[in-house]
Amino acid sequence: AKLWGGRFEESVTDAVERFTESISFDKALYKHDIMGSKAHASMLAKQGLITVNDRDSIHEGLSEIERRIESGEFEWRTDREDVHMNIEAALTDLIGEPAKKLHTARSRNDQVMTDFRLWIRDAIDAIGVKIKYLQVSLVKLAIKNEGVIVPGYTHLQRAQPVLLQHLLLAFVEQLERDAGRLLDCRVRLNFCPLGACALAGTGLPIDRFMTSDALEFTAPMRNSIDAVSDRDFVMEFLSANAITAIHLSRLGEEWVLWASEEFGFVTPSDKVSTGSSIMPQKKNPDPMELVRGKSARVVGDLVTLLTLCKGLPLAYNRDLQEDKEPVFDSVKTILGMLEVSAEFAQNITFNRERIQKSLPAGHLDATTLADYLVKKGIPFRTSHDIVGRAVALCVSKSCELQALSVDELKSIDPVFEKDVYEFLGVENAVKKFSSYGSTGSACVASQLDHWVTKLEINKGV
Amino acid sequence: AKLWGGRFEESVTDAVERFTESISFDKALYKHDIMGSKAHASMLAKQGLITVNDRDSIHEGLSEIERRIESGEFEWRTDREDVHMNIEAALTDLIGEPAKKLHTARSRNDQVMTDFRLWIRDAIDAIGVKIKYLQVSLVKLAIKNEGVIVPGYTHLQRAQPVLLQHLLLAFVEQLERDAGRLLDCRVRLNFCPLGACALAGTGLPIDRFMTSDALEFTAPMRNSIDAVSDRDFVMEFLSANAITAIHLSRLGEEWVLWASEEFGFVTPSDKVSTGSSIMPQKKNPDPMELVRGKSARVVGDLVTLLTLCKGLPLAYNRDLQEDKEPVFDSVKTILGMLEVSAEFAQNITFNRERIQKSLPAGHLDATTLADYLVKKGIPFRTSHDIVGRAVALCVSKSCELQALSVDELKSIDPVFEKDVYEFLGVENAVKKFSSYGSTGSACVASQLDHWVTKLEINKGV
Amino acid sequence: AKLWGGRFEESVTDAVERFTESISFDKALYKHDIMGSKAHASMLAKQGLITVNDRDSIHEGLSEIERRIESGEFEWRTDREDVHMNIEAALTDLIGEPAKKLHTARSRNDQVMTDFRLWIRDAIDAIGVKIKYLQVSLVKLAIKNEGVIVPGYTHLQRAQPVLLQHLLLAFVEQLERDAGRLLDCRVRLNFCPLGACALAGTGLPIDRFMTSDALEFTAPMRNSIDAVSDRDFVMEFLSANAITAIHLSRLGEEWVLWASEEFGFVTPSDKVSTGSSIMPQKKNPDPMELVRGKSARVVGDLVTLLTLCKGLPLAYNRDLQEDKEPVFDSVKTILGMLEVSAEFAQNITFNRERIQKSLPAGHLDATTLADYLVKKGIPFRTSHDIVGRAVALCVSKSCELQALSVDELKSIDPVFEKDVYEFLGVENAVKKFSSYGSTGSACVASQLDHWVTKLEINKGV
Amino acid sequence: AKLWGGRFEESVTDAVERFTESISFDKALYKHDIMGSKAHASMLAKQGLITVNDRDSIHEGLSEIERRIESGEFEWRTDREDVHMNIEAALTDLIGEPAKKLHTARSRNDQVMTDFRLWIRDAIDAIGVKIKYLQVSLVKLAIKNEGVIVPGYTHLQRAQPVLLQHLLLAFVEQLERDAGRLLDCRVRLNFCPLGACALAGTGLPIDRFMTSDALEFTAPMRNSIDAVSDRDFVMEFLSANAITAIHLSRLGEEWVLWASEEFGFVTPSDKVSTGSSIMPQKKNPDPMELVRGKSARVVGDLVTLLTLCKGLPLAYNRDLQEDKEPVFDSVKTILGMLEVSAEFAQNITFNRERIQKSLPAGHLDATTLADYLVKKGIPFRTSHDIVGRAVALCVSKSCELQALSVDELKSIDPVFEKDVYEFLGVENAVKKFSSYGSTGSACVASQLDHWVTKLEINKGV
Repeated sequence: AKLWGGRFEESVTDAVERFTESISFDKALYKHDIMGSKAHASMLAKQGLITVNDRDSIHEGLSEIERRIESGEFEWRTDREDVHMNIEAALTDLIGEPAKKLHTARSRNDQVMTDFRLWIRDAIDAIGVKIKYLQVSLVKLAIKNEGVIVPGYTHLQRAQPVLLQHLLLAFVEQLERDAGRLLDCRVRLNFCPLGACALAGTGLPIDRFMTSDALEFTAPMRNSIDAVSDRDFVMEFLSANAITAIHLSRLGEEWVLWASEEFGFVTPSDKVSTGSSIMPQKKNPDPMELVRGKSARVVGDLVTLLTLCKGLPLAYNRDLQEDKEPVFDSVKTILGMLEVSAEFAQNITFNRERIQKSLPAGHLDATTLADYLVKKGIPFRTSHDIVGRAVALCVSKSCELQALSVDELKSIDPVFEKDVYEFLGVENAVKKFSSYGSTGSACVASQLDHWVTKLEINKGV
Repeated sequence: AKLWGGRFEESVTDAVERFTESISFDKALYKHDIMGSKAHASMLAKQGLITVNDRDSIHEGLSEIERRIESGEFEWRTDREDVHMNIEAALTDLIGEPAKKLHTARSRNDQVMTDFRLWIRDAIDAIGVKIKYLQVSLVKLAIKNEGVIVPGYTHLQRAQPVLLQHLLLAFVEQLERDAGRLLDCRVRLNFCPLGACALAGTGLPIDRFMTSDALEFTAPMRNSIDAVSDRDFVMEFLSANAITAIHLSRLGEEWVLWASEEFGFVTPSDKVSTGSSIMPQKKNPDPMELVRGKSARVVGDLVTLLTLCKGLPLAYNRDLQEDKEPVFDSVKTILGMLEVSAEFAQNITFNRERIQKSLPAGHLDATTLADYLVKKGIPFRTSHDIVGRAVALCVSKSCELQALSVDELKSIDPVFEKDVYEFLGVENAVKKFSSYGSTGSACVASQLDHWVTKLEINKGV
Repeated sequence: AKLWGGRFEESVTDAVERFTESISFDKALYKHDIMGSKAHASMLAKQGLITVNDRDSIHEGLSEIERRIESGEFEWRTDREDVHMNIEAALTDLIGEPAKKLHTARSRNDQVMTDFRLWIRDAIDAIGVKIKYLQVSLVKLAIKNEGVIVPGYTHLQRAQPVLLQHLLLAFVEQLERDAGRLLDCRVRLNFCPLGACALAGTGLPIDRFMTSDALEFTAPMRNSIDAVSDRDFVMEFLSANAITAIHLSRLGEEWVLWASEEFGFVTPSDKVSTGSSIMPQKKNPDPMELVRGKSARVVGDLVTLLTLCKGLPLAYNRDLQEDKEPVFDSVKTILGMLEVSAEFAQNITFNRERIQKSLPAGHLDATTLADYLVKKGIPFRTSHDIVGRAVALCVSKSCELQALSVDELKSIDPVFEKDVYEFLGVENAVKKFSSYGSTGSACVASQLDHWVTKLEINKGV
Repeated sequence: AKLWGGRFEESVTDAVERFTESISFDKALYKHDIMGSKAHASMLAKQGLITVNDRDSIHEGLSEIERRIESGEFEWRTDREDVHMNIEAALTDLIGEPAKKLHTARSRNDQVMTDFRLWIRDAIDAIGVKIKYLQVSLVKLAIKNEGVIVPGYTHLQRAQPVLLQHLLLAFVEQLERDAGRLLDCRVRLNFCPLGACALAGTGLPIDRFMTSDALEFTAPMRNSIDAVSDRDFVMEFLSANAITAIHLSRLGEEWVLWASEEFGFVTPSDKVSTGSSIMPQKKNPDPMELVRGKSARVVGDLVTLLTLCKGLPLAYNRDLQEDKEPVFDSVKTILGMLEVSAEFAQNITFNRERIQKSLPAGHLDATTLADYLVKKGIPFRTSHDIVGRAVALCVSKSCELQALSVDELKSIDPVFEKDVYEFLGVENAVKKFSSYGSTGSACVASQLDHWVTKLEINKGV
């Protein structure tokens, strides 16, 4: 019989039991549920609401249950609905009467919020570790590929030459903000709902500050109705994950492009590639395709939460039980995406020669040429126009800017002089960059130093 | 070793294997995978690409594998990646050489699309059955509650009196369109991709019409690249589910309102209610809250698919492996929502007396009064204004329209006569409705007849 | 004063008026609103609810208002809330008393649904025209590029050679299903809500079949509550658009890739390219990037509608006013995406030589080689393995399969003979395809014929 | 001619121009574009890249353009594509040559990011003001309604009695976190992209720290590729808005319920209500329905951004032009939602008597009774069970707990004594709450004090 069965005469139908159960997924909260119950019992004892013996026997019982769960001995029962009832009922089976006192001054409404906040707090920490792992992998990849110049793209058209390191560090920047969002979310959610009970608090003399401290929350939540009814911390967390996932989808797209025959920038090793069941020659960058693809479900999880909470009245509604699976899915997915991206970064080789051979295509030095004219005192808009005409000449001749003679250049505009060749060619062009944050070698080196220090990377390795 | 391992020298890392595997979920396709493989083998034999003995041995092997899967004896292996490889490898273990010929003129790309279309086709049929089940439950509930008048709401304000049957049949209409959308989707997806191979078809002399027929598809798909790369049938299916889910969320909201103390229209039986772990008096309509809430994940699943497919180049990309879990989740959820809603409909009692007692509140007969004035030749806009003033008078007197005397009414406008009382009061008001589709008794009875016939309901039961 | 102001003593605040107005966008419905009102007035006259003179004067007044709107003379007033009230009030200003009778047996609830269904019906027809326009443009592009072989990709890795025509026709197939979804939606929504009034119908003797016929609906809707409260036709329409948009995003991705320096398949003309404000050499395929990007808002519009309708109780709620802007945005966006994609198709040139030169890369003939072995009686799995080793040999020698000598091939497996060279090389490989729907020339020609006939294309043009 | 037209020979088609233009919406950025250009010009002059005279003439010209825009004299031209080109071209028309130098060491890519970050920064500040306005309105409403007890709900079933103030403050808490999320977003986005140019920085001797300071950014962004390609600040901002919108949708739902005949808690004044075009008696809480409904588009806007950015390669892609309209829509919508909610709060009256009369229904004191038993030493689970049976007795007798005699209570469990009546009845029940954050009077008063101080509310008003 359900623990709330006092005034009920009939059991729910099988279909309803199956439909409303949550034990199949919320058992993932067991560790935090037990942690919360222990803190609660300690507080009840301190406040004289249960005896010290009760408390000890509850603590021991819960430890035993935790052991059984982790060793796989514990039997999860659907008829006991959820993780809270399963553990409480098992505790009653184990220690008898004292277990019946554990739910004093507590409701599942505040209990589950406590568990869930603790769980997400840990998840944030775990994601943070993996973000750093990917950042380190990217920085190490950058270190390994010092001096490699690649085309920088806008509109997927070749735009300007950039250092590969510079490109890779752009992703490191993004990841740093991803971590920042998670930390902000962590600070904001780290308040303790325990003691809010069903929605209104309690008249029993509990000490919410004590449980809050024991569970390392910043403080108890100030309003009990808010504590049990809001899920903004979940939405915020899933938003942070969704943004990270979108970042990773872009990394995925980039690397899938780079691994194509057409771009040919990287060769992934066998360790991160798969083959085809029909085409024997194929070697596919599947992990990064899946990183790109799995971003979709992280977005879907966020949409689920937003749609779920839309238009719900106060305080707790059973709809909110649906908050957990999207979170579990989002966390599992993000952790996998980060880990696999890091392993991919560790297992690709840049095809330096092939990249270098392709660099002359696309007039990557055209903007540097415009800067040359600006330095000669030509207004930028006029420079832009002049270079435009020079490029048109190259297109008609199928040659590079570098290959135009001074006379040809002068025929476009007399301002051109011999020194123009110091600005032409991809290597020259890269050398000219000097602004803060630019792709100039010194600027990139300084960025790299920043990250090596910040991420505590041993450059020797 | 992977089946595509020919040119590979190293295995993928554990993290990559975990991240890219699909066997944990795509094993759900086993029955359709086996069905497809049998059809394929028959065709290969007919076309002389394998021997009749090979075919027989493949068929027997596949039947044995199906038996083992269903009895739980089959060992699913993650290192064999997916359902296709698991079954093919098991077949090889079982029957040896002939199994190696099964993948002739086939790729996993067309194979999985065949499986998936077959699976969704079955899912559509199953959902159709449950939609009808809910429709029948609603119609029977309507039959049981003949003559009950309830307030009809707009803006959640009482608007006009309606027959409860009329309200319930509005949901039956919605569900009928939901079923229609699924059927359209079924027709559109029922084309056979088998034989499209990886993306380009094959040079081996296969007969795609034969496999298409054997699997009860309408015809083979006309373009092999389209066959392996598009997922519009999945997006369409998930859209249809999302719309159904939104409909059900509205039913959920309605019934949660009706079950509240404030509305007090229905009492759900214990079979479809749950209690509280802290508040002993609670009896909550949880199943319908969850119906409302679970609509969110069905929407999330759709968003996942749309986001997944956005911006993918032709033809197959590994991202597309992510198409399955949202579908499985959507189907499981929708089936549960429909079933539980039907059971809820079967287990609620309308509180006729309480409803009737509350009907006088809210001036539900005001519009009928305006119609009275229109019948007397007053333009509608003027009538609306006159009745507005009559209502204002009632508000100031805290009474109902019915309670105004003829003199009071005449003081608002002299057109009022004694016959006005035939239009006042909720029962009179309902009687006056006569337009097609309206809440008038005859109109609703005719609607009900339509559904009883269409849904083949035995009214006696 | 508002038309519903009878019992109201104070006006709404400015902020509320601004926030709740819809005239800024729903005026787009004016034509259908007038069409609906004319049909309604004709019916009222036929039923004797207004005089023939009233009807004529209403018709003339509405025609005059339509003329003023289209000539820009009409003043839309925010204090008159919405398109319905603006037109009705203007009609009253224009023709006086008879105008006050127009709203007899009608509410804004059924009126706006009538307008909106008519508007969407027209939008579907307009989108259908543009879909066909894009299909025709793609087919013509295919005709112009007969015989061009391009690499087919899976995982963005070169997989097998395909005819360019085959690729282009894959998109034509997708678009055909997109059109089908819209037609199904059109059939399902084409039922008339007029006469449902606020939610319950009316007691006045209206003829809903007459208005339904006049407005070319299939029939009046059967249930008045359903008629005013459901928005599934909007969700279905936006779903159909979202799926089309995702298809177009994939076309956009494809063409952006093809226009890159790295792929170099196509050169868009100046008519469909834009430049850079800083990089003079750039020529960007912006229209197709925007086609890809704008798919996002079409998805966003769908999510808006789903979220909007989630959990709303019966019948009409003001929330539903929010159904219009996403539809207008979706339609405008889709029409633009289709049109611009068609123009892009008309303004790109395939770089045949460059494509041909790149074809040898990527072992596109490997699968054909496996088919060769199958034809020699080797089981497919073994063939796959053998070819895998041949490819590995090529990779180590940096050569193509074609360049391996018979002896080298025999060293891998003795089954190879001289006739193997008929299967090697991209052109040979394409020639070998013969299955229905495959990329073989005859198969593609037959696909092309299908579309030329179906789309009524004059091949000479 | 376009400003990038140098190498272009033909204009884009009309459809492409219409489709790719952004001036119809990005003109909203004019003020921040001008602000950014002035800072840029000052820096160019300081660095000697333009003369002081050039700078002055640019500054004056830009001021004049700003004046013209604000007075409506400025002509926005679609053929000039966007806000940047419109202003730059107008500047050239106005001041000639110096204007051509303004785009030195700048690209539209970094320019638009600068504008957009500045615009969003201001939007965050504006939303912050409106959040506080709503908080203040809610707190004042709480102050006005001291002592009012309402039923607290879970599952929309009456659960426990709570102070109305407590409920209202729950929303104030939510809004405070909403503001916190926006502030975190503001801190994270407040870095300056100007000088990143197209993607790679520049070789001209610019001072990015100077422009960053002038525009009150924290610092220049460290990586130029990151600066032009990422949109995480937009996604984060839209997420924050979406969460706020969901909170407001819940407030909307709550108040729509409260305004219903059935709940009857509040009467909105005419200033925030609207009527019906057909039902003269209606008075609808439309603003709050629209608040609930408009949350959907704020969610849709977020989904648009996430979908937009998914899978885009580095660096800038034209798709990203689509980032603006969702932001403008989201901001406009949120500002309206907050403002109208505040006005609603200011214009509702709680129906104290009616609320009080309804309080006895629903056994709101049942949990307090369980606490009574706990205080008597009964384990909570047993207490819960005992009270469950007491409630069942009340249900069968159609009475309240308070109405049970001591003997009846004792018949359920002998532990009951006369002092039980101090715990029964809603008023007693509320008095018993004492835990931190609970609905006990002292606890709520202390919450209220917190907010009065924090929001600097003059309690006298």
